[in-house]
Formats: sequence, structure tokens, C-alpha cells
Amino acid sequence: MSAGLWFTELWEKPGVSFSLKAITQLWREETPYQCLEVFETENFGTTMTLDGVLMLTDRDNFFYHEMMTHMGLFSHPNPKRIAIIGGGDCGSLNEALKHDTVQSAHLIELDESVTRAAERFFPDLCARNQDPRVSFHFTDGIVWMENAPAGSYDLIIIDSTDPVGQAARLFGEAFYTACYKALASPGILAVQSESPFLFLPLIKSIRRNMRSAGFAEVLTAPFPQPTYPSGYFSTTLAAKGLSFAHFRKEDALKKAFETQYYNASIHEAALIATPEFLKGS
Amino acid sequence: MSAGLWFTELWEKPGVSFSLKAITQLWREETPYQCLEVFETENFGTTMTLDGVLMLTDRDNFFYHEMMTHMGLFSHPNPKRIAIIGGGDCGSLNEALKHDTVQSAHLIELDESVTRAAERFFPDLCARNQDPRVSFHFTDGIVWMENAPAGSYDLIIIDSTDPVGQAARLFGEAFYTACYKALASPGILAVQSESPFLFLPLIKSIRRNMRSAGFAEVLTAPFPQPTYPSGYFSTTLAAKGLSFAHFRKEDALKKAFETQYYNASIHEAALIATPEFLKGS
Repeated sequence: MSAGLWFTELWEKPGVSFSLKAITQLWREETPYQCLEVFETENFGTTMTLDGVLMLTDRDNFFYHEMMTHMGLFSHPNPKRIAIIGGGDCGSLNEALKHDTVQSAHLIELDESVTRAAERFFPDLCARNQDPRVSFHFTDGIVWMENAPAGSYDLIIIDSTDPVGQAARLFGEAFYTACYKALASPGILAVQSESPFLFLPLIKSIRRNMRSAGFAEVLTAPFPQPTYPSGYFSTTLAAKGLSFAHFRKEDALKKAFETQYYNASIHEAALIATPEFLKGS
Repeated sequence: MSAGLWFTELWEKPGVSFSLKAITQLWREETPYQCLEVFETENFGTTMTLDGVLMLTDRDNFFYHEMMTHMGLFSHPNPKRIAIIGGGDCGSLNEALKHDTVQSAHLIELDESVTRAAERFFPDLCARNQDPRVSFHFTDGIVWMENAPAGSYDLIIIDSTDPVGQAARLFGEAFYTACYKALASPGILAVQSESPFLFLPLIKSIRRNMRSAGFAEVLTAPFPQPTYPSGYFSTTLAAKGLSFAHFRKEDALKKAFETQYYNASIHEAALIATPEFLKGS
């Protein structure tokens, strides 16, 4: 995956390749599930890849982690109990714990090695791992959600890898149905839904599966993500017993923590703006 | 620039490289100003590059051309006389001519070869080149604007290449001052302002220069652009004698032409949403 001093990720299907100038490889590990590598790059800081696919960089992970968490947290009137499926790098966990409403956060990640590497190489993202509200569960997220007591979460975040192999079932109706049952009402499911430009059929399928699982409202929020395919990514949220139109705007306006991308105006724009090519999906 | 069957663009400064799978090179020409190449790519259609820098692809140029034109055109109460500086590929011209209010459109491009290649390889973008409202002027845009009669344009679009070499002066206060003078009141200047993620200092400089040139209001609208650096691009608009808050929303809602990205909701979102890292600039 590394050619000379560059990390290169090749997407054969869209016929696109993206490279980052790397200074050195800091780590390489064959975990029970995947090949985990960490690079120091020249301008994007530390970078983690799984099976050659770029997961995050120091410099631009804020877009993803802020949009994956704060959209859902400020859309819920009082999010206390949250679950994050995947997200072993702890970036989403770290953002979610900035909300005082949160009383418990379960992180359910299949591959413990991802979290151990994040603790070592991405200490900022793991800054809240010792928070007493957190519990880690290194196990299968699908089984976990099937066994979760009904109504036991206010917000479920699916911070998964791409829909290939193990992760594919995380995009299916059966899993969304288990999430619907595990959510209280009001409750929100927020998933990473890939690039609207490259994978529009996937987004349509996610939205259809969410509705089939019982969710009344579905909202796709695109955002920039420079180091992911096409530089354009999205989160799709599904609502049980609430409407996205009534987000806690005042709380977002006076939030007690800093962000780099998300704010109340970005949230509001996501509610009104639908790119023409996304309409009707 | 082409390695095997791939076109590769390397941005040494941000340490990023982007490649598109190419099927064949269709054209290569040393014009008086630059090296112009055209590739057929596997998934992005026909692609034009200038000095190895990707200018446009069939598949994703709609983001750029729609945002560079319709934001300004629907922000102006009655845009009749427009000028496009650069934009030799005719994509912005083609979008602008979809507006019935437009009575004359001057395209001022330094390198005639770009337009000739576009006519041959991007016929869709050149579909309105024979429109009687159009005149082509293959000359220096800076000189053109310095000599333009005061108040002779309602909208000036700067569809330039990156701010290096010849194009750098298109981002400076002196040029913006000439544009201000050439604009009627109300009038709008709309410029391509690069990636907010990679080139934030440039955007700040553009906004500062616009204000120094006399423009009362400045608006930066980010948008996705998958094949440009970071996949995240922007247009910055400057207003003379009008406020961006009062765009022609009803006209945008019932526009008589199709778009793929721009619509009234995207326009409205651009007015309210400012990413946290762009605030105060």
C-alpha cells in the first residue's frame, strides 16, 4: 500500500486513486480481523489504515466525527444513553462525551486492536476513554444490538467501515430493525452513509431500509471529508418518535465545547438543503 | 502526467496526489500558454488538464459550473449583462445562458485553444456557444476589465485557474477594484476561491481584497468538487449595491432548466451555513 514515501489508496471501481505523502510507517499489525497500519504523513498528521483503506487522519477527521455525533445529539431532546457500533478509533466517542446529557456510552467494536492503536497513536481522540460514563465491548455489533433490551438507547451511532465483508450487514434492514427496537422513543439512529457522489444507490438503499425498519423520518446530511473517496461524505439519520425539524438549536448555539466544522448553522443548513441529484431518494 | 493508464495529479504542497483511471489520451497540444491534454477516463468521462492540472471532467463539472453561475445570477434582481473571465471550457457560459434575463455574455479567455478543444471534446458545455447573446474575446482578462466602461456589467464571473503564474493577479485587490468599477449597481462579482480546507488563507485574502475594493458584502459558498484538491471547493461572491440575503428564491424554485446540484435550498443553505473554521474570515 505504500509506494516509496506515499500511502496510496486505489478505488478500482470508481477508477480513482488517492495518495498522501507519508514520512514513515509507525505501525503495522495483522489483527484477527484486518491489517492495521499507521503512517506519519507530511501534511495530514498521523493516519490509520485498515486493509489499505484510509480510516482517519489527524488533520481532517473532525468533519466526520463531528457530523456523525452532534447532528444526532442535538436532534434528540435529551440523549442520555448512547451506543456506538464500530468507531474503535474513539473519535465519535470523544465528541459524544462532550455532551453533558450523556450518562452512558457503550462502544461496541469488533477489533480491540483498533482501539489499542488509537490510544497509542491518536491520544486526542482517546482523551475521554477513562470517562466513567464509558464502557468498551469488543464484540460483534450486530449480535449486541439484537440482544439489547428494547428501548435501552436514545441514540445509536453506526461508525462502521465500508459495506464490504463483515460490515455489509450493518447497512441492511434486519440490523436497522434491531436498532429500532433497541431505541427508546424518542430515539435516533445515525449511520455513516458513504459518498453521495460515488455511492448514491447505497444511500438510497440505506434510506429505504431505515423506512422499512419502521423509522418515520430519514435525513441525509452530506459533508466534506477530504481524505475519503471523492472528498464528499455523508451521515444518514433516522428518527423514531421525533422530527428532525425540531433540533435543539439554542443548545447548539451555546454549546460549551469547540468544534471545527459543525455548528448550529451547519445543522440548520443540513435540514433545508438537498442537492438536486439527491432529491426523491 | 500519465502513468500507465492513469492520469495523476500531484499536489506537492499539501502532500496529496489524486489519480483517475484513463483509457486513452485523446489530445495533447502545446498552446502559446500551456500544455493542454484531454483524456478519456474509465468512470469520469472526458477530462481536460492544463499543465498537468485537472480542469474538468464530464462527470463532476456540474458542481463547479452550477455554483459559479446560479448563485450570482439568482442573487441579482435582473442580471442582463455578464462577463466571464477565463472559463474557456464554456461550462459557466453554458449555465449562465440558461437564464432568460441575460441579454449579453462576454467570455474573455486568454487561451483560445482551450475553447477550441472544449468545442471538440466537451460539446455539451459548448451547446450554447452559437447563442446570439454570446461574444468571445481571446485576450487578457485583466486588461479587458481595466478598460471596461464603468457600470457596464451586472455580473462578473472569474472562472480562473489556480492563483499561480498568469492567474495570480486575478485574485488581487487591484483587479477586484477594476471589477467593482466595471459593475453596475446592483452588481455582483463571483470568483472561484479554491478549497476552504487546503487554502483557507487564500480565501481570507480574497474576502479581504474584495472588501478593500469597495464591495459591501462578501459570501463564500463551499461545495463538493470530487476531482479538485480535497474534493471541497468554493465560490466567493461580492456584492455592490445589494444584499445576498434577498436572492430570487421564487425564481430559483421554479427555474425553467434542470440542474444536478444547485437549487433554491442549496442557495438558501449557503446563506446561513458557515463552517466553524471559516467563521470570522
